[in-house]
Amino acid sequence: MTGTKQGAPGGKEPVTLDLLKRKMDDFAKERDWETFHSPRNLLLALVGEVGELSEIFQWKGEVPKGLPDWKEEEKVHLGEELSDVLLYLVRLSDVCGIDLDKAALRKIELNALKYPANRCSSRRDDDDDPSAAA
Amino acid sequence: MTGTKQGAPGGKEPVTLDLLKRKMDDFAKERDWETFHSPRNLLLALVGEVGELSEIFQWKGEVPKGLPDWKEEEKVHLGEELSDVLLYLVRLSDVCGIDLDKAALRKIELNALKYPANRCSSRRDDDDDPSAAA
Amino acid sequence: MTGTKQGAPGGKEPVTLDLLKRKMDDFAKERDWETFHSPRNLLLALVGEVGELSEIFQWKGEVPKGLPDWKEEEKVHLGEELSDVLLYLVRLSDVCGIDLDKAALRKIELNALKYPANRCSSRRDDDDDPSAAA
Amino acid sequence: MTGTKQGAPGGKEPVTLDLLKRKMDDFAKERDWETFHSPRNLLLALVGEVGELSEIFQWKGEVPKGLPDWKEEEKVHLGEELSDVLLYLVRLSDVCGIDLDKAALRKIELNALKYPANRCSSRRDDDDDPSAAA
Repeated sequence: MTGTKQGAPGGKEPVTLDLLKRKMDDFAKERDWETFHSPRNLLLALVGEVGELSEIFQWKGEVPKGLPDWKEEEKVHLGEELSDVLLYLVRLSDVCGIDLDKAALRKIELNALKYPANRCSSRRDDDDDPSAAA
Repeated sequence: MTGTKQGAPGGKEPVTLDLLKRKMDDFAKERDWETFHSPRNLLLALVGEVGELSEIFQWKGEVPKGLPDWKEEEKVHLGEELSDVLLYLVRLSDVCGIDLDKAALRKIELNALKYPANRCSSRRDDDDDPSAAA
Repeated sequence: MTGTKQGAPGGKEPVTLDLLKRKMDDFAKERDWETFHSPRNLLLALVGEVGELSEIFQWKGEVPKGLPDWKEEEKVHLGEELSDVLLYLVRLSDVCGIDLDKAALRKIELNALKYPANRCSSRRDDDDDPSAAA
Repeated sequence: MTGTKQGAPGGKEPVTLDLLKRKMDDFAKERDWETFHSPRNLLLALVGEVGELSEIFQWKGEVPKGLPDWKEEEKVHLGEELSDVLLYLVRLSDVCGIDLDKAALRKIELNALKYPANRCSSRRDDDDDPSAAA
């Protein structure tokens, strides 16, 4: 990882939410799509992509971590749908004026307070807590 | 995680997808939640969070960019739901073995090929292309 | 509405949830699809169809009731996606052993208790109550 | 609604889509909620309910048909969420001016043409066809 900003040759500069935000903003500006990118339009577009993501998994029954039996082309397709959800999410946050960097880090902290690490082996009646469904 | 790497004092180090991935992985490990974090469990959890995100917007009619009339607490709530979607998305990608950094950058490039900047003022019959719905 | 069971000539026998349930069950049996129709498979298929439904509306901004400006082919498409959601919902209820007739009528009664007709002009802080978002 | 119209003595009049439509319309009228029931508001409300439905299944891994191990209260909750999705779907169809009776029956016919009963044991490369994912 060298000093150049985004992607030195061969490098794998870690992707920031901010980079994606700027790329999505440029993309919309270059195509005069800004008027289409209203909050609820983007939200519905996100829901559409979540639907496409779900379709990949819909007839498969449970699948193990790492998707060992999936063909390479299926994984590529999955990466595309995950990305579509991500990109609309980043764009939606941006047009809503939400600082997603700050919000995401804060949410992790809130989750840590809600589910203290040393108490979560016990069952609790909480939809968000997987161990409650064990 | 030492002081310098992520978040210098007053810093606001940009948040990377990789940072979120590691935080989510640590979070699951510390709570013995790894068995719950199967691909389809996480996908359904993501769908649940998208539902909560939608509920915020459901009775509002169209809302302008920047959400000028929203109360601060509503924006905080929105940031939380956007973050929940993001965190499950990052986690889902991770347990599926998808390199979301790579996939997201590639998807932006594919989109740029699909919708060349200088052709998108014209209408096309494509669900993905907002200008086709103009 | 005459006595013959489903659809006299020219008739428009009202469609019951039970009729749809039986048709979906026959459909799956005739194609040996029963093993695929597990609860979570069907749930993800439903999410997929909700995504397709959302795509129809995603770039349109707010649309008035009755969709006066939509082309006939758009309305036909909309009817198909609404139907897909409905059919998977009916099928999901069936494989889960839920009596959707009973559940739906009961839910309407519960909603009437939760939102009494003569009190709903006042604002309340409830996500389910549209007037709270006014 | 008297006992004679649809259904045998002993009650359990089969529930029609039309009955649900009328009940939802009355419900909205009685509460002055008609202005809130715009197409996209209802669509987002539906997405919200699909999220709640997904939350019920999210940490459970695969579950067998009939949900043999679920507590009665869980099944009641499930029936409520399935109903919420159904009711918003029926309401959305109504405000869009879509004849859901006709659309649903037609969609079943289209599906039968798309997936002929005697050809579906073979694998095909079609996302909608479960046997393609076998």
